[in-house]
Amino acid sequence: MIERYTRDILKTIWTDAHKFATYLMVEKANVYALHQRGLIDANTFESLNLVSFSLDRIEFHEAQLHHDVLAFAEACRETLGEDKRWFHFGLTSSDVIDTAHSLLLKEANSMISRDIDDLLLVLKEKAMMYQHTPIMARTHGMYAEPTIYGLRYALWYDDLKRLTATFIQARSLVEVCKASGSIGTYPILPPDHESVMATKLELSTSALHSQVIQRDRYATYISSLVNLAGLIEKMMLDIRLLSRSDVGEVAEAFGTQQKGSSAMPHKKNPISGENLTGLARMMRGYLNPMFENQALWHERDISHSSVERIILQDATTLLDYMLSRATKTLNNLVVYPERMQEHVSESYDTGASQWILHQAILQGIDRDEAYQSLQTASFKAIEQRQSLWTTLQSTTLATQLNLDTIQASWKPFTHIQAIYDRVFNEKN
Amino acid sequence: MIERYTRDILKTIWTDAHKFATYLMVEKANVYALHQRGLIDANTFESLNLVSFSLDRIEFHEAQLHHDVLAFAEACRETLGEDKRWFHFGLTSSDVIDTAHSLLLKEANSMISRDIDDLLLVLKEKAMMYQHTPIMARTHGMYAEPTIYGLRYALWYDDLKRLTATFIQARSLVEVCKASGSIGTYPILPPDHESVMATKLELSTSALHSQVIQRDRYATYISSLVNLAGLIEKMMLDIRLLSRSDVGEVAEAFGTQQKGSSAMPHKKNPISGENLTGLARMMRGYLNPMFENQALWHERDISHSSVERIILQDATTLLDYMLSRATKTLNNLVVYPERMQEHVSESYDTGASQWILHQAILQGIDRDEAYQSLQTASFKAIEQRQSLWTTLQSTTLATQLNLDTIQASWKPFTHIQAIYDRVFNEKN
Amino acid sequence: MIERYTRDILKTIWTDAHKFATYLMVEKANVYALHQRGLIDANTFESLNLVSFSLDRIEFHEAQLHHDVLAFAEACRETLGEDKRWFHFGLTSSDVIDTAHSLLLKEANSMISRDIDDLLLVLKEKAMMYQHTPIMARTHGMYAEPTIYGLRYALWYDDLKRLTATFIQARSLVEVCKASGSIGTYPILPPDHESVMATKLELSTSALHSQVIQRDRYATYISSLVNLAGLIEKMMLDIRLLSRSDVGEVAEAFGTQQKGSSAMPHKKNPISGENLTGLARMMRGYLNPMFENQALWHERDISHSSVERIILQDATTLLDYMLSRATKTLNNLVVYPERMQEHVSESYDTGASQWILHQAILQGIDRDEAYQSLQTASFKAIEQRQSLWTTLQSTTLATQLNLDTIQASWKPFTHIQAIYDRVFNEKN
Amino acid sequence: MIERYTRDILKTIWTDAHKFATYLMVEKANVYALHQRGLIDANTFESLNLVSFSLDRIEFHEAQLHHDVLAFAEACRETLGEDKRWFHFGLTSSDVIDTAHSLLLKEANSMISRDIDDLLLVLKEKAMMYQHTPIMARTHGMYAEPTIYGLRYALWYDDLKRLTATFIQARSLVEVCKASGSIGTYPILPPDHESVMATKLELSTSALHSQVIQRDRYATYISSLVNLAGLIEKMMLDIRLLSRSDVGEVAEAFGTQQKGSSAMPHKKNPISGENLTGLARMMRGYLNPMFENQALWHERDISHSSVERIILQDATTLLDYMLSRATKTLNNLVVYPERMQEHVSESYDTGASQWILHQAILQGIDRDEAYQSLQTASFKAIEQRQSLWTTLQSTTLATQLNLDTIQASWKPFTHIQAIYDRVFNEKN
Repeated sequence: MIERYTRDILKTIWTDAHKFATYLMVEKANVYALHQRGLIDANTFESLNLVSFSLDRIEFHEAQLHHDVLAFAEACRETLGEDKRWFHFGLTSSDVIDTAHSLLLKEANSMISRDIDDLLLVLKEKAMMYQHTPIMARTHGMYAEPTIYGLRYALWYDDLKRLTATFIQARSLVEVCKASGSIGTYPILPPDHESVMATKLELSTSALHSQVIQRDRYATYISSLVNLAGLIEKMMLDIRLLSRSDVGEVAEAFGTQQKGSSAMPHKKNPISGENLTGLARMMRGYLNPMFENQALWHERDISHSSVERIILQDATTLLDYMLSRATKTLNNLVVYPERMQEHVSESYDTGASQWILHQAILQGIDRDEAYQSLQTASFKAIEQRQSLWTTLQSTTLATQLNLDTIQASWKPFTHIQAIYDRVFNEKN
Repeated sequence: MIERYTRDILKTIWTDAHKFATYLMVEKANVYALHQRGLIDANTFESLNLVSFSLDRIEFHEAQLHHDVLAFAEACRETLGEDKRWFHFGLTSSDVIDTAHSLLLKEANSMISRDIDDLLLVLKEKAMMYQHTPIMARTHGMYAEPTIYGLRYALWYDDLKRLTATFIQARSLVEVCKASGSIGTYPILPPDHESVMATKLELSTSALHSQVIQRDRYATYISSLVNLAGLIEKMMLDIRLLSRSDVGEVAEAFGTQQKGSSAMPHKKNPISGENLTGLARMMRGYLNPMFENQALWHERDISHSSVERIILQDATTLLDYMLSRATKTLNNLVVYPERMQEHVSESYDTGASQWILHQAILQGIDRDEAYQSLQTASFKAIEQRQSLWTTLQSTTLATQLNLDTIQASWKPFTHIQAIYDRVFNEKN
Repeated sequence: MIERYTRDILKTIWTDAHKFATYLMVEKANVYALHQRGLIDANTFESLNLVSFSLDRIEFHEAQLHHDVLAFAEACRETLGEDKRWFHFGLTSSDVIDTAHSLLLKEANSMISRDIDDLLLVLKEKAMMYQHTPIMARTHGMYAEPTIYGLRYALWYDDLKRLTATFIQARSLVEVCKASGSIGTYPILPPDHESVMATKLELSTSALHSQVIQRDRYATYISSLVNLAGLIEKMMLDIRLLSRSDVGEVAEAFGTQQKGSSAMPHKKNPISGENLTGLARMMRGYLNPMFENQALWHERDISHSSVERIILQDATTLLDYMLSRATKTLNNLVVYPERMQEHVSESYDTGASQWILHQAILQGIDRDEAYQSLQTASFKAIEQRQSLWTTLQSTTLATQLNLDTIQASWKPFTHIQAIYDRVFNEKN
Repeated sequence: MIERYTRDILKTIWTDAHKFATYLMVEKANVYALHQRGLIDANTFESLNLVSFSLDRIEFHEAQLHHDVLAFAEACRETLGEDKRWFHFGLTSSDVIDTAHSLLLKEANSMISRDIDDLLLVLKEKAMMYQHTPIMARTHGMYAEPTIYGLRYALWYDDLKRLTATFIQARSLVEVCKASGSIGTYPILPPDHESVMATKLELSTSALHSQVIQRDRYATYISSLVNLAGLIEKMMLDIRLLSRSDVGEVAEAFGTQQKGSSAMPHKKNPISGENLTGLARMMRGYLNPMFENQALWHERDISHSSVERIILQDATTLLDYMLSRATKTLNNLVVYPERMQEHVSESYDTGASQWILHQAILQGIDRDEAYQSLQTASFKAIEQRQSLWTTLQSTTLATQLNLDTIQASWKPFTHIQAIYDRVFNEKN
């Protein structure tokens, strides 16, 4: 991933140096299991643990061997004495690579989990902060009825909780140890050996593998990441729409020395929202390649590898960036409640039309007839910029209903508290 | 494709009856070529031309043969006398299917071309109609500078011209005759035979095929369709954004008996725009399967077939629907020039900031200094809802520049006519 | 979806008639809840339950109203007496549509679950049937080591178990009741009302919605379907590769009157495998549109609707077809164990190279040195078509190792039973 | 893109240093046009041409301005004297960025064109080299009829010619100058100015733009790149399938010190083919994000930018890598004609079945009857591993036809030369 969208921790995780260090962790877990299972003695174990490598030596060997795991193993082995024969003993390259990927993803996932926690916190804070701030709800972009601004934060909070549950399920599928050997039949090392390694590495196991971990796991995993990115897009789209000059209900924070445009000095733009919208598209682009990787030939072909070299790194890095930037954008968002109220006013009470319709029905008036009157009066209200309660006066409804009583009974925020309770009164 | 998004002509093109009738056209072209090349005499040719089929008989045979071309050929053959041995002579199934697809696509493409012409006409009309209608240009959704509403129709017109050129290139790639036989080596019928058929069917030829037409052709073709759908989405997005209650500059037409919502009598919504936005997503979904079809095994495997049975039909049907609905939506669009003017006013002349900046530079004022003043004055103008020319009075720029002269010189629509000339003064 | 890929039950689920019948179920659940909550008495409730509709009347109303739920409600209402005012009381269209989708998907999901059970059964049967059938494992398409043919069925069984767990999680997300009204604030009907409806309809509830169910749920759901399709592709790819003339280890069943090609009488082709490979591509095409649907505007825009009208129907219908056809294909697959054995022989014992390598290491021979000898001897074995045990005789390894003992100790199937136990000894 | 898949030239093109140098080219073209149009005199022009920048200073300014073009302009301006006010005069950021992208893509496209030429050369060479090498054609992976191995290179050559024509069309769409200013109305600089810049930069112009170049151009462009990647996948799939141990007709080159597997010394694998297969998947992943970028808001929103920062670089870099690696892989491919001949023999002459069928028809035998006999005899030939000519002896066809004459007349390669002539006898 390009520097611009890469934060430090994820950058470190996906360096070559760290990748090979993680390969080494897997190799050491193998040596550990050999020792646990009594194949090598304590001295051998200790001397093997002194193994190390340098990137230069790996590069040197890869030029000849055309195989990065072999080159890595060679670079390690040459730092060892005669015990080196136990290094990589019984393993096939995929045991190392797939298990190392599990470890690397586990690190990335931990960071993403922390990012999610940060975002949850901001969403909850904002939900509370704006629990009594009216805003026009808009469906199809058109004024519907008044709602509470904080409610959308509650919705996103609930969305994120749900997507996090899916993410946690998905990450468990890819944090798995694989040491079943060259074709999945444990040709050198027995199933028990793999279990010891898994415990040591704090990874799960699977009933079986082919030469590799099955790639449907990664497909499920990437779906969960893309879905999180989609939620970010949803939130940012809300900000972008509310930021528009025609709306002006929110604005992204703007630095004191910041410039919005090289040509137009008057510009302030919701660029974080736009940036993250684009990155959500980028994330969606990862779906097809990762799902295409699923159908490998027989015990494996390596066509998935090039895709994963790019996407596992890029998708986790991008999502970390996106979560962090979304959190910051929401946290610093400038909100204009008075502008929101202004638009509520400019809806000319048409948001009450549903309420009046149902009061009319309750009082025995035909639904269609009432609908007709309300539609006419509402369109007139909007066109003439006056209250629906006023435009209704000239309809038959005014003679059939006590509009004052109905107006007094219209309480659009009655159930907001109950919804908040359901969302935030979590036991877990 | 579901009925809702299917118009009559496309529906007819993709019926089984029409598909088999097209197969028959190909078979007849084969018989024609056999005759032209002297393999069969006039009598045989004439009697073969009496061939026909019924869908019932095809169905009957397919149940046993598990192969629709064979079943079709059988159903045809049984309507012939002893000359039937010449029917399907020398052809392999793919000669029939691929060439028939070329003919079916050619029909669909003709319809799409007509749809495009209709849309071009409306776009040009609207560009002319609104050539003098000011509207705020918005970048990032924020007021930029005043522009002309008709200009966006000119842009879309130019876009559509460009995409049509790409479409015409692409359709030429898939309107191709294929009669090179079972593995592309012309095992029974020679290359000349294919040429005669192609001429008869008004299709192009290719230097070579495998058993089938190469599927990169379809990938290029589908890209061109999806790109046209993307332009529709772009136009619809503009309508949806301008329709918002907060903007109100345009509105989709609304039937006298139409209802916008079952619950909220006051609602009118830009549903055509939304519908077509969704369908553009649907179209994008066709890209990956059609590009995946490219890499078939050796002389061919049939994995592409199921994809094409669905997508060739669905993509052309959807695009026909989309073009037609977009044309209708644009044609009937209600436009509110006074509302557009209202927003131009509500930009408080900040749209002049770039012009003032450059006048300042021309008069030797430091760019940064001028930018700074203009930014401050613009933000103040927007916040306090007064003209930039007013808020500028309290800046140093007011002492350095003759603002009245600059205001008089600001003519944002100077080059509109020149742009129109470039777009519409077509020689072709 | 086209007829060819549509099975009866799924076809019925997605008819207009059944869709509106499901709308009616939701409306009746609403009436039920009104009664439960004491708003309408028993008589009213009973008379309301007599409601019905005809497709003709819906069509009639839709032509005028341009809104299918309104048209449906109107068609229902006209079959009722004066109690009709309670019909659709308090609901917004999305309450009906989204909840009806939940019910329709629940039906489709039940069918898919049954399909999965059928497939699991066949996979288990085949795993057992071929538990002792040797076959060459191939990595990168190249002979690796001997394995057991049944093991791949065990793998697929385990895959399917895992994907089913994901599917069950995912379906729970889309089988949810939604009656929170026009903007999600329960403007007419309180939260309790929704709960009563949910219980009645045997659907779950959510802490909150906007006007609609949040579309990330559908994104997760579609991912799980596409992943199941991907497993089918994986299995079919295995069949296609093993069917090749050059391999001949399996063959799809071939009907007695079936014909493989219209031109080449000698052909039998793995067409089910190819067909399902294509359909897996088709399914992957549904990912992007469904993930794009996630970011709707504010309380909702309807852009997702056109996509879902097509994909919810097509994806479930296709997957049902795919699962069923895959099950049948696997069930009828012809397997040639003797041909598998032939290829094991033709690997010239090179599959033992890993075993020999590790025995050499255990006996203190340098890994690189042993690897070198084994590589040379193996390449020679393959080139000269003689056993590795023979070609090894001329290497230094032959002097260092007791090759007879090693050959006797090579037991490639040692852990197969243990793997089977892990896969099939299920407690749940 | 990760280092592993990045070649030097593409790496250089997409460095920050080169990007900003290209920005500077655009700025200088602007200054040039100002001079040409008489706005600045020769001295000013000369002194402006001394402008330079350092990455450090850009970074410094970007930290404050949050806008990379502004930061770049600032870093340039500070290297100038009082003429600096003319720097960036009249431009908006997108004039610089979009035009710079056109220049960068032009460079990348030139490299890709050279790669294509290299690949065309190898394909032609191989087509000639194997013009007389028989191989079994396989449809559905099953033996069809004998063909010529060189013919597939001719096919790929023809494919590549066609895709190159599409690529050239597509690149012309994205190599375009854009200087129409902040909203596309040429607010400061007139249309003529843009034309002068375009001529200077050797780019095309467009009738109009919004603030930015329309993104359908990039969508068409990316499609052409992905299509080229798809052809590479098609060729590599052919290699992978022919490399399989069961086939052994070709092999990727294998270095003398290379190792195929860390565990299995006997392995040689078609890893280039697999690697490139994966990368073709990766490329397909770029389609959807780039097509989603098409529908920007009004005069522009910047959501496309993050996508393009990643994909323009990655897609061109990957394709350059893929083309180069494919060329090398094909160039070094080891081919085993004798193994191909062996498989021709093992088809037991069943490839003649179509020829015999048609001879039978020509001699008045009923097609179905002949087909039946040939099918039975062919299946028997394959099963019993004897020639079709032999197994035919026991059928009625043997009594009806002179099989010897027919066998002598069977010349499957008759039209190969004619096909070659059509492919390679190019006038251009």
